Amino acid sequence: MIMSKAKLLDNIRVVMIHTSHPGNIGSAARAMKTMGLSDLCLVRPKSFPDEQATALASNATDVLDKATVVDTLEEAIAECHLVIGASARRKRSLTWEQLDSRACGELIAKQSISGKAALVFGRERTGLTNEELAMCQYLVHIPANPDYSSLNIASAVQILSYECRMGMDKTISRQDQRAQLMDQSRADNVVSSDAMLGYYDQLQALMIQSGFLDPEEPRYLMQRLRRLYGRVRLRRSELNILRGMLASFEKKMRIRK
Amino acid sequence: MIMSKAKLLDNIRVVMIHTSHPGNIGSAARAMKTMGLSDLCLVRPKSFPDEQATALASNATDVLDKATVVDTLEEAIAECHLVIGASARRKRSLTWEQLDSRACGELIAKQSISGKAALVFGRERTGLTNEELAMCQYLVHIPANPDYSSLNIASAVQILSYECRMGMDKTISRQDQRAQLMDQSRADNVVSSDAMLGYYDQLQALMIQSGFLDPEEPRYLMQRLRRLYGRVRLRRSELNILRGMLASFEKKMRIRK
Repeated sequence: MIMSKAKLLDNIRVVMIHTSHPGNIGSAARAMKTMGLSDLCLVRPKSFPDEQATALASNATDVLDKATVVDTLEEAIAECHLVIGASARRKRSLTWEQLDSRACGELIAKQSISGKAALVFGRERTGLTNEELAMCQYLVHIPANPDYSSLNIASAVQILSYECRMGMDKTISRQDQRAQLMDQSRADNVVSSDAMLGYYDQLQALMIQSGFLDPEEPRYLMQRLRRLYGRVRLRRSELNILRGMLASFEKKMRIRK
Repeated sequence: MIMSKAKLLDNIRVVMIHTSHPGNIGSAARAMKTMGLSDLCLVRPKSFPDEQATALASNATDVLDKATVVDTLEEAIAECHLVIGASARRKRSLTWEQLDSRACGELIAKQSISGKAALVFGRERTGLTNEELAMCQYLVHIPANPDYSSLNIASAVQILSYECRMGMDKTISRQDQRAQLMDQSRADNVVSSDAMLGYYDQLQALMIQSGFLDPEEPRYLMQRLRRLYGRVRLRRSELNILRGMLASFEKKMRIRK
């Protein structure tokens, strides 16, 4: 089944975290709609709905009307198979796989064939927390003037939405039906963020039990492991192996008591 | 002579014709500056300078301060070797060579090596007149949602400035150099196959010890785990965490005996 571009664009979710200025939500909605995106999710916005958002959305109020509001990033990305965080600057750390805006658009376009992908935007001033970053598989940065790189959030949404649309054109024109179907069946097997949470809980419990993780002094261990396993994009069958293995370790530790 | 990217970006002029809303001039200046453009030329703006323009320019008032104001498009493009008009929609007419935003950025980037290139933006509502179009060698359109293609002028300036910068990177082919360096430094931190073997041995031993892996009937478990961890391209620090974790599990299983 070949999906239409509009249908694929529906699979891209824009997540905005703790946005302070309602106007930015409106401008972002407008920017999304110009590129055909429509799925907006707001994590604890300061004020929403808000007349300033509506005013700046211009004729994109339909995007605001169907926006969802949630309490945590976890909820926002629960059904997403690919989560990409937007960071103002290229991080020096090599811990995250980093993409520029173009590669990001192409990756999301490909992924949208098989399920939801999320683009996550942090707070206007302070961006994403380390905890939030740990929930992202990739970080994207927009190449910009190093002396003045502060794109406002709506401009960043505009450029990334644009790159998603451009990537979509590439994906659609490149892929024949068979390639699409192949991706479909492969991606069907990539586990969701939700399923990964269960694995992380199990891993954490076992690390505490063995004394490897001190809950009083966690030293970012869980964040680092989440980042590691987030990169792998586990298939369902692989997750089953890992969970089965941990269960067998747990049992062995317990029965020796 | 190799010119710096900043110098090349200086050769790109943004021309705005009869702009009605001063705020749009300010937002455009800001968008330009984020991408390193600084040459703004205004053809008979309705009001300039104007405090609304200054307010929306944020920290890009330097672009406004050195903007030139002229009476006609002819004056604005007098010294330009390449003139590209931005039109809201792809024109049906075949009279003009038409480019999409990406091709436009690449063409301007190439041209900037040898002289000034101009990107011409028309009035907010009515765009460019036929007379003005006739002064352009090319028209550029930004691919957009056919049902809602009205990017505001500042968003159009943002995307086209971005594509100029992206095209510049390609032109300078600095990109390759940087990518090489990045790959290099990343590769330095990716563990060797050798080191991975040690990890697989440790994992296998523990799985046997816990009863999860039956050496008599291994069911491709190790192969599948190798494939999984092989995909991750583990950093050294991550491998250390995984090995430390397994060691703690092993110890816990042992001391309970």
